[in-house]
Amino acid sequence: WQPHRRLNPLLKTWVLCSPHRLKRPWVGQVEPPAITQNPVYDEKCALCPGNVRADGVTRNPKYEHTFVFTNDFSAVLPDEVVGSMNDSDDIFVAEPDRGVCRVICFSPRHDLSLAEMSKEQILPVVQLWIEQYRDLTQQKFVRHVQIFENKGAMMGCSNPHPHGQIWSTGSIPTDPARELDSLRAYRDSHSGSCLLCTYAAQESQKKDRIVYENDSFIAVVPYWAAWPYEILLLPKQHRKSLLEFTSDEQICFADAIQNVTVRYDNLFQTSFPYSMGIHQSPINDGPHDEAHLHVHFFPPLLRSATVRKFMVGYEMLAEAQRDLTPENAAVKLREQRNVHYKLWQQ
Amino acid sequence: WQPHRRLNPLLKTWVLCSPHRLKRPWVGQVEPPAITQNPVYDEKCALCPGNVRADGVTRNPKYEHTFVFTNDFSAVLPDEVVGSMNDSDDIFVAEPDRGVCRVICFSPRHDLSLAEMSKEQILPVVQLWIEQYRDLTQQKFVRHVQIFENKGAMMGCSNPHPHGQIWSTGSIPTDPARELDSLRAYRDSHSGSCLLCTYAAQESQKKDRIVYENDSFIAVVPYWAAWPYEILLLPKQHRKSLLEFTSDEQICFADAIQNVTVRYDNLFQTSFPYSMGIHQSPINDGPHDEAHLHVHFFPPLLRSATVRKFMVGYEMLAEAQRDLTPENAAVKLREQRNVHYKLWQQ
Ligand SMILES: [Zn+2]
Ligand SMILES: [Zn+2]
Repeated sequence: WQPHRRLNPLLKTWVLCSPHRLKRPWVGQVEPPAITQNPVYDEKCALCPGNVRADGVTRNPKYEHTFVFTNDFSAVLPDEVVGSMNDSDDIFVAEPDRGVCRVICFSPRHDLSLAEMSKEQILPVVQLWIEQYRDLTQQKFVRHVQIFENKGAMMGCSNPHPHGQIWSTGSIPTDPARELDSLRAYRDSHSGSCLLCTYAAQESQKKDRIVYENDSFIAVVPYWAAWPYEILLLPKQHRKSLLEFTSDEQICFADAIQNVTVRYDNLFQTSFPYSMGIHQSPINDGPHDEAHLHVHFFPPLLRSATVRKFMVGYEMLAEAQRDLTPENAAVKLREQRNVHYKLWQQ
Repeated sequence: WQPHRRLNPLLKTWVLCSPHRLKRPWVGQVEPPAITQNPVYDEKCALCPGNVRADGVTRNPKYEHTFVFTNDFSAVLPDEVVGSMNDSDDIFVAEPDRGVCRVICFSPRHDLSLAEMSKEQILPVVQLWIEQYRDLTQQKFVRHVQIFENKGAMMGCSNPHPHGQIWSTGSIPTDPARELDSLRAYRDSHSGSCLLCTYAAQESQKKDRIVYENDSFIAVVPYWAAWPYEILLLPKQHRKSLLEFTSDEQICFADAIQNVTVRYDNLFQTSFPYSMGIHQSPINDGPHDEAHLHVHFFPPLLRSATVRKFMVGYEMLAEAQRDLTPENAAVKLREQRNVHYKLWQQ
């Protein structure tokens, strides 16, 4: 394998692959896996049922499945924006934005994570995402709904209580907008066929980058992965948004999320950190038939529970770079068991 | 200040600004500044003069100013590449790449950093960058020369010995290629005038984002900064590459680097981590008159020597987001002294 670059056809970015560097000597720490067990309920947690939130005033209800509330320190506000901001030139360009930011608790149990939840426990989370996406279309100024989860101290998330966020904005943010542009351009130049439908079908045939596949979904380490164990999870049929999932597909989606996250945890026998998020059709913005829902998992770990990849230096200034090939990463994830390591290690 | 987005006219990415979040309560650690003093020479350092390198075999010369060598584990190799890699479709797109990776020691002194070096000590570094850029044009397959420095453990750089790297490749990497596209498009639509010449002149007039300015260079927190204390350093005159600097400009460039890095160290009284790199004209690739050399500084620190910004969650999945405005960041940096804190703290 010689050094080469691969194109991300969604973002039109490249990643430099250096498989020859895997011969690099590695003075590895071999640490015993740290099995930390959080309590089922933590009286100091701002997300546990019945507790007081970060604002010091509001008290959470004693919720039994999921729970959603408006972020106390939202990055965008629903307030109507006033005036234009532009100097009327094309160097100092700005625009006001509005939006709604919410927090979603995945479970009342402080000690769980998606990786330790069953697909039956994940299903209510999927259904809440659907409900929220639908609810936000009522806010007529919202065009993009970004559902995401940021997990682990390595990702700056200090509260282990299983939770995610939704930031919805009047603007379509940079990366989702670029992906939609690419999907639209592909459709236009391929007699209406969809880039991600084609990609899912080809990966399903090629098999070497598959991490998990069920009737309706496929999870792969994408051909253009920038992070060592990056995963792209997508429906095999063209689905613009969560609203188009059948009830069977909702269950298959929960099953795929369970299978991906448990393999992540098992890989280095640790609570695997990542940022995960769903890209789907804009709302209140016309049909967007080009949209094909997909989930990105961006995990920072490289070689063990503590050895991470830094996206710095050349990667901040030029383009992403990786040594481990996506094909090698996919094999390692695919071979993991579907039972959480805490259950077979005890 | 309402929530808004600003456009990066070079990369065509947006950054979401949430100045209203600065009212967010901050339970800050106030740590005493940790003045760590490294030894002038470290017998275990692979970069100190006379020591054995990371390959365990080669010995460094007893260099007196700067020293350059080929990276023992280069991400790209100069070997001729064979064959094409494409499946002849437009989803699985790859191309082989070649290149040369080198390491540059800025000083024989293990205990220094650019921030603690005088402009007279930085000048030989500038001159080595010039020499290296010129030298790499001899490698006819090289088109992009990425000079950069990755500083600090927070950036995954464990050796404090002052050093940088050069990765040169046959391809023009994603971000520099996008910047060149934008510079070319601006030139075409503005009767040949340069986006960065215009930007430098306007910032010099507006003054509110200036960190440091001398006869030939201006350092600003760019209007579209993604990192809290990001800096863009650029020549006020149109200079395509380091080769076009006059000797006076070489000294002014060293002076600007000294002024930027010492202010960084003084801000939180710590050895300020960052990734820094020079974008300039491609080589062996025609005139590229649109290129305007500039230096990016991307530092991760947010509030103190230990509180960092994480580019995760929404930022990995949608677009960059900041609370502190670039204007506020510029004031804080501009007000720092030009004498290193270690000198007035002792
Ligand atoms: Zn909790
Ligand atoms: Zn040293």
